[in-house]
Amino acid sequence: MAVKSKILVIGGTGYIGKFIVEASAKAGHPTFALVRDSTLSNPSKSSIIASFKSSGVTFLQGDLYDHESLVKAIKQVDVVISTVGSAQLGDQGRIISAVKEAGNVKRFFPSEFGNDVDRTSAVEPAKTAFATKAQIRRAVEAEGIPHTYVSSNFFAGYFLPTLSQPGVTAPPRDKVIILGDGNPKAIFNKEEDIATYTVKAVDDPRTLNKILYIRPPANIYSFNELVSLWEKKIGKTLERIYVPEEQILKNIQGNHAVFVKGDQTKFEVEPSFGVEASALYPHVKYTTVEEYLNQFV
Amino acid sequence: MAVKSKILVIGGTGYIGKFIVEASAKAGHPTFALVRDSTLSNPSKSSIIASFKSSGVTFLQGDLYDHESLVKAIKQVDVVISTVGSAQLGDQGRIISAVKEAGNVKRFFPSEFGNDVDRTSAVEPAKTAFATKAQIRRAVEAEGIPHTYVSSNFFAGYFLPTLSQPGVTAPPRDKVIILGDGNPKAIFNKEEDIATYTVKAVDDPRTLNKILYIRPPANIYSFNELVSLWEKKIGKTLERIYVPEEQILKNIQGNHAVFVKGDQTKFEVEPSFGVEASALYPHVKYTTVEEYLNQFV
Repeated sequence: MAVKSKILVIGGTGYIGKFIVEASAKAGHPTFALVRDSTLSNPSKSSIIASFKSSGVTFLQGDLYDHESLVKAIKQVDVVISTVGSAQLGDQGRIISAVKEAGNVKRFFPSEFGNDVDRTSAVEPAKTAFATKAQIRRAVEAEGIPHTYVSSNFFAGYFLPTLSQPGVTAPPRDKVIILGDGNPKAIFNKEEDIATYTVKAVDDPRTLNKILYIRPPANIYSFNELVSLWEKKIGKTLERIYVPEEQILKNIQGNHAVFVKGDQTKFEVEPSFGVEASALYPHVKYTTVEEYLNQFV
Repeated sequence: MAVKSKILVIGGTGYIGKFIVEASAKAGHPTFALVRDSTLSNPSKSSIIASFKSSGVTFLQGDLYDHESLVKAIKQVDVVISTVGSAQLGDQGRIISAVKEAGNVKRFFPSEFGNDVDRTSAVEPAKTAFATKAQIRRAVEAEGIPHTYVSSNFFAGYFLPTLSQPGVTAPPRDKVIILGDGNPKAIFNKEEDIATYTVKAVDDPRTLNKILYIRPPANIYSFNELVSLWEKKIGKTLERIYVPEEQILKNIQGNHAVFVKGDQTKFEVEPSFGVEASALYPHVKYTTVEEYLNQFV
């Protein structure tokens, strides 16, 4: 059996990072986590740090924003997996520079772990976030760095405990709001499994310079199918409330700005740019909302 | 009393245009509607055309895309009101050119009749539509054309008959979906009133080179207040289902792409760019969605 590559995880104490670090150690890879001093002494990170220690993880002190520390850490390993969070996605150029300078990296995994950003129909503001990941892909390719992009689709832990319902902590047992018609298929993968597949890909030539899609057949469900599965489990039928695409798009197209942001009334009409009609023409007998609704009673 | 300006409406048989044409004629303005031959013979427009005729409206044959016809029509009037629909918004540069060439226009109203596009927090794709209207504003100002922009907020006829609920033809009597927390205030104006205020502004020096906001105090309602008003009218309390901003934004930020567009599964994994994890590593015993949900039963 081949020697297991040494793996450095950057962002290892973050949401998906901690699963990757554990999976790497469990799979027998010499595993390294880049950590700041402040992380090691952060009470909210203490249980993760303790868990990493008991798994035999080596801590390398450093920081994404400290080039020397980054190069030094990278030189000690074979493979770099970035799991930095959304705020740091655009700063992964720093990792690319360090990987280039170190010169020893056999494989780099930039932080992805979502939809395939080159095959998306996202609208703003998601489009911009996706564009950042896509730019990092292009930079990795331009530098000729051996890489794998992990398209892990949805984190099960984000969606399944609530079936994507807002403000709840358990799946619904009464009614469920479904965005769109509920028919497109999505993919829900448990975080531990995403980590397992990612680590498996590290030394696999079949995943070199490829996108690793995690699409296990048993995890592909439309929203409607997901609700049906849950109904079967609890032996109860939920009321399905559909919020059609038309309404979502309408909402995005201005209603959102009005009903959520208050665009129509959030500013004062200043004489420098505007005048108000009912004040200007007080004798116009306009139809009030109250009167308008009478026709439907 | 001053002589009433002659008004040309471009887009006069459209949704808001027909109200403006009627209001103009009713107010005693010599009123002209630019129409194509095909519009005059269009059966779906016959009742509008008949109504215009009985109101004494003069038809001028022409087309937004026929510069000569546009200049010729504009030379016969004092004021131009554009009510072209969304598909033609960007082509209003043609009207600006014709107004400039004609040289006689005392006031130009570009097609607006919505939110103030210079004071919006809209996200894409509404942002782009709003940007088009804003560009037309800038072009009007750059050419020094006397103008008024009508910010009429919501058309009552679009929202009140359904309270913005999808797929219904009457206001709800059972439950109502509210996007956001329902607290920002919006403004709902009847189309006839929007037309009346617009026509009043035509010869009014107070509205010259200003934005005319239509914000009658009795028409300003939050969604929650609107629902309460309706409940009072029908003597019945509705179930209010809130779809919080968080969920809307989440949805915009990728869920929409997944649940409505099917981004995660709409393409095949081709060997040229990708590999599928569960096929590559068939011995990994992943947690299925079905198993995952068991913890919540």
